[in-house]
This record gives sequence, C-alpha cells and structure tokens, in this order.
Amino acid sequence: MKCRQCEAKAVINMRQHKLALCANHYIQWIVTQTQRFIEKYHMFTHQDRILVAVSGGKDSLSLWDILWQLGYLTEGLYIGLGIDGGVNYSSRSHQLCVQFAAQRNLNLISVNVPQTYGMSIPEIAAHTQRGKNKPCSVCGLTKRHIMNQVALEGNFDVLVTGHNLDDEVATLFGNTLNWNVGYLQRQRPLLLDNHPGLVRKAKPLCRFYEREMAAYALVRGIEYIYDECPYAEGSTSIYYKGLLNQLELDRPGAKLSFYLSFLQAKETGFFSKPINLEYGEENVGAGGETLYTCPKCGQPTTAKGLCSFCRMMEKISR
Amino acid sequence: MKCRQCEAKAVINMRQHKLALCANHYIQWIVTQTQRFIEKYHMFTHQDRILVAVSGGKDSLSLWDILWQLGYLTEGLYIGLGIDGGVNYSSRSHQLCVQFAAQRNLNLISVNVPQTYGMSIPEIAAHTQRGKNKPCSVCGLTKRHIMNQVALEGNFDVLVTGHNLDDEVATLFGNTLNWNVGYLQRQRPLLLDNHPGLVRKAKPLCRFYEREMAAYALVRGIEYIYDECPYAEGSTSIYYKGLLNQLELDRPGAKLSFYLSFLQAKETGFFSKPINLEYGEENVGAGGETLYTCPKCGQPTTAKGLCSFCRMMEKISR
Repeated sequence: MKCRQCEAKAVINMRQHKLALCANHYIQWIVTQTQRFIEKYHMFTHQDRILVAVSGGKDSLSLWDILWQLGYLTEGLYIGLGIDGGVNYSSRSHQLCVQFAAQRNLNLISVNVPQTYGMSIPEIAAHTQRGKNKPCSVCGLTKRHIMNQVALEGNFDVLVTGHNLDDEVATLFGNTLNWNVGYLQRQRPLLLDNHPGLVRKAKPLCRFYEREMAAYALVRGIEYIYDECPYAEGSTSIYYKGLLNQLELDRPGAKLSFYLSFLQAKETGFFSKPINLEYGEENVGAGGETLYTCPKCGQPTTAKGLCSFCRMMEKISR
Repeated sequence: MKCRQCEAKAVINMRQHKLALCANHYIQWIVTQTQRFIEKYHMFTHQDRILVAVSGGKDSLSLWDILWQLGYLTEGLYIGLGIDGGVNYSSRSHQLCVQFAAQRNLNLISVNVPQTYGMSIPEIAAHTQRGKNKPCSVCGLTKRHIMNQVALEGNFDVLVTGHNLDDEVATLFGNTLNWNVGYLQRQRPLLLDNHPGLVRKAKPLCRFYEREMAAYALVRGIEYIYDECPYAEGSTSIYYKGLLNQLELDRPGAKLSFYLSFLQAKETGFFSKPINLEYGEENVGAGGETLYTCPKCGQPTTAKGLCSFCRMMEKISR
C-alpha cells in the first residue's frame, strides 16, 4: 500500500479515516492533527507553561515529543511509584523518561513516592481499605494529588496527560454502562474546574487510537516501556478495551464515532447542567459538584474536611 | 438447586437476582413482577382496553398470557407479513396465535398485509429504496402503521408489545454508541406522544431477560414459533445482542443495570428537555420533535406532508 501524499511505502493504514501514509507524512499528520485538537478544544496556547505527565509509556512520551515539535513550553513530570513487579517496572520507566528528556534538552521533574512518603504505592495500598485488593485506586489518587501539587507549585498553566482514544472510550463505556451521571458530565478533552487549588487538565491525544500512538512512537524511534503496569492485569478498563476492540474489528470507526458523538451530544446541550468555567461559578467542579479546600494541602475536595489523599495518609501515619 | 419459596426443584436460577424458583413460584413471580412494572411506569389500568401486538413468538404470547392471568381487558393483533423463508414463517406464526387465543377464549384481530395492500412485505421492500438490501425497515414501518391504525379504529387505550430486556438493551446500546439524542430521549417503558392520531405504547416485559421469557413460555406450555424471522440474520441488533451476551456472561446483571441506570438517569433529569404528556405540549413527540398530521391516514408524522408509510405506498402505486 502506498502513501496518499507521495509514492513511498505506507507504514500505516487507518481504515476509519480511509488514509494510508508513509513514515514522514504520518508523523506530519499526527503533529498537525494534535495542533488541531489543541485549538478545537481550547486546551492551551504557545504562551502557556505546560506540565506533561510522563509514565515512560508510548502515549505520554509521544505526547511530549509532539508538543516539543510544535514548539510548546513544556516540562515533564515523572512520578516514581516504587513498583517492581519482577520487571523492575518503576526504575526502567524512570530511566526511559530521563533519557528522552536529555535527548531533547528538556526539563524533567521527578517525584519519588517511596522517598517522599516513606512507602511505595503497593505498601501504601497494603495499609488501606481502598487498596486492599488492588493498589490501582490508591495509585490513581496519589498520582492525581502529586500532579496537581507539582503543577500548582511550579505555576504551570495546564497539566496534560497522554490518554488516547482507547483509554477515553473505555472510560466512557464504563460510565455509560452504569449511567454515572457525574462522570459523564465531567469527561471532556479539557477539564475546567473552577477552584484556586486546581490546575486545568487537557488530553491532546484523546482522538488518536492506541495503535496510532504505538505506530507514532515506533516511527519516531521513541524508546518506551512495553510492559503494562504489573497490577493492571484483570482490571475493568482492560476488560472493556477487549470488548471494544472486538466491536472496532467488526465495525471500523466505532470507537471514534462513539466518542465524537458523545462530545457532540454534550455540545448540543443534551446533558443538563453542563457546568464549567464559562458559567463563572466559584468552586464548582466540571461535573457540577461543590468544591471545598482541603485544610492540609489546599487542593480541592468534594468533602468538607481533609481531601481523600490527606485523609488516607493521615490514617496510615496513625 | 431448590426453590427459594418451597422445597421443590428449581426450574430457573436468576444470577442477577440471586433467586432460584420452582415452576409454580416462577410463574407467580413473573406475573407479580409484571403487575409491579405496569404500576411503576403507569402503563395502564384494569379499566383500559389493551391491544396486544402478537407475532407468534415467545415474548408477545407470554405477555398476552400474563395480562390475561392478571385479568386485563385484552385483544390480540396479529399482522401477517407474507414471509415464507422456506419455513412457512408467517402462516405458522398466525396459526399459533389463533390457537393461543382460542384456548383462552380471547379475541384475535388479524391483518393480512398481502391481502390488504396487494403485496407481501418482501415484495413491498423490493419496490422501494428503503427495502433495497433488507426488508426490515419496510417491515417495521408497516407494522407501526398498522398497529397504530388498528388501535385507533378499535378505540383501544393502549398498545402493548413484547419487547424484553435484551431487546431494549440492544436498542439502547445502539443509540448510545452513536449518541442518538432523539432516540435516547424517546426510549421508555411507556411512550407518551401527544398527538390525537397516536395511541400510547407500553412494554410491560422490558425488565425481563430474554431467557426468563423463554423459561416462562416453556413452563406455561405456550406453543410459539422458535424460528427467528428469516430476514433477521446478520442484523445490527443481533450483533449487539451477541456482544452484550458476552458482557452479561462475564458480569452477571450488567444488562439490567445498564437499562435501569439509564431510566434512573432520565428520572433524575440528566437529559435535557424530557418532553412528554406531563408537560402538556400539543403535538410534541416523546423525543421533543414537532408532530404533524398525515393528510392521508391521519397518523402523526414529523414531516409536513404525507407520513413515511403513505409516502412509500404512494410511490409503489405509481
């Protein structure tokens, strides 16, 4: 198969776009499309200071690479979770992030959970009810806390994450199966919560399929960690991804149209109470929930006392 | 496994309800639950004249049987589509409906499409753009037209159909995959369109799994046609049912919770503009669309001229 732009051999064929491209035109296409999405969803501008959350995986490193090519002001944030899983998971992924940043002369901020909090994520999880069966919930809570804290302390304008279409669609599918009203209202490419302790969040890759990001990383020669997190196995989101992959196989483009028609339905006012900054309400989350300030860390919380993270850490320290 | 109500052998185990029942208690349970749903969704009362659309399949005949047991004022409507498919589909299903009604001394109204319109459904389909590939869309349109017409001419208060949970969930899944706003707003156990030419429609079996209805028909000794319509093969709704069956297998109760949480989200005002009779707007469909009157048949239509059915039949007669 040949590239649609030139006569070179195509490296990828995207059935849902009816588009085959060679290596060079593919890179160009991904970068241009990303810029389009950034503008379309009003994510950020070239004046903003952007914190890119990187895990060492293909999505987040590719995102940082794309934003770097587009000339945005970026710094990376790596969070060392202290996960080994027999594959040296955390230290290998850290090393890949350090190498990536050094090659491009970019600044990488690293936060090491065991050093900062005295325990690794699996250890914190073992001490809590929330992490009794699996550390994933504790891990998510801790990462969200640290990402927001680093973004605020470093005066970043926006925090970006490498969530791709497959991630977003799996989340959307789960929230739709249970009609989680609050979560459906919150899920957007750009999250605007109106609270002084909360940084804005954007997902510039939300319209790219996972395989498109894997192809991008490959073509660009980005070294990334292939292993999934050893704790991810058997998770609900991986189960949903399997089911959705089957759907996509039988109905090419199904995932993209599921996600885009969802965003479209929101734009046309299908959901009631679409609350965000445009409505100018103080201390209101993107899902319409009231936000309070955690007296310990200053971050927003839907509870009236300590936020979930500070509550968890206080319980452990007792 | 034993019945939860007595010591007899259970005929069914419903994992999602954690409930195993013997034949007698199962029949009782289905009948009682149906009465509960009829009341919960304000479908109809013992004073209403009810037209039951019957196809000869397990769902619609079981529905009629249940309503008969509950002492409702019912008559049946069978629509002969003129479908043979090598299995004598239409005439066999008609015969089963006639037999069912005779056994219970109930009145069955039969409309024969080939006799009334001069052509069978497959023949009408072959003459139209809509039915070019498959007669299903033409069949649905024709059945809706006839059901409404018979209900209006016979002064029935409500038309009921045998849609089960699997049917409703497949429809909901399809509408969600594409976020068909109008269809999502319309989908309810009771459909209230506010137009003088439209009868109210109810689906009393919408919360029962297909296998529960099959078990009911079996235990009650109802003879029904086992074959699917010969044209149903390869349909989108059957494809979705397969995917959803896989989900249900891995996550028992997933279908029921998908449907119930959807209804719940509607009730709590998640969707904007939930328009129905309660709002008292004239000539407005359940999805909020404006309804006009077809100058030929008097039934409602979203078009300003002839309704889709009359337009189709006029094109054919030219």
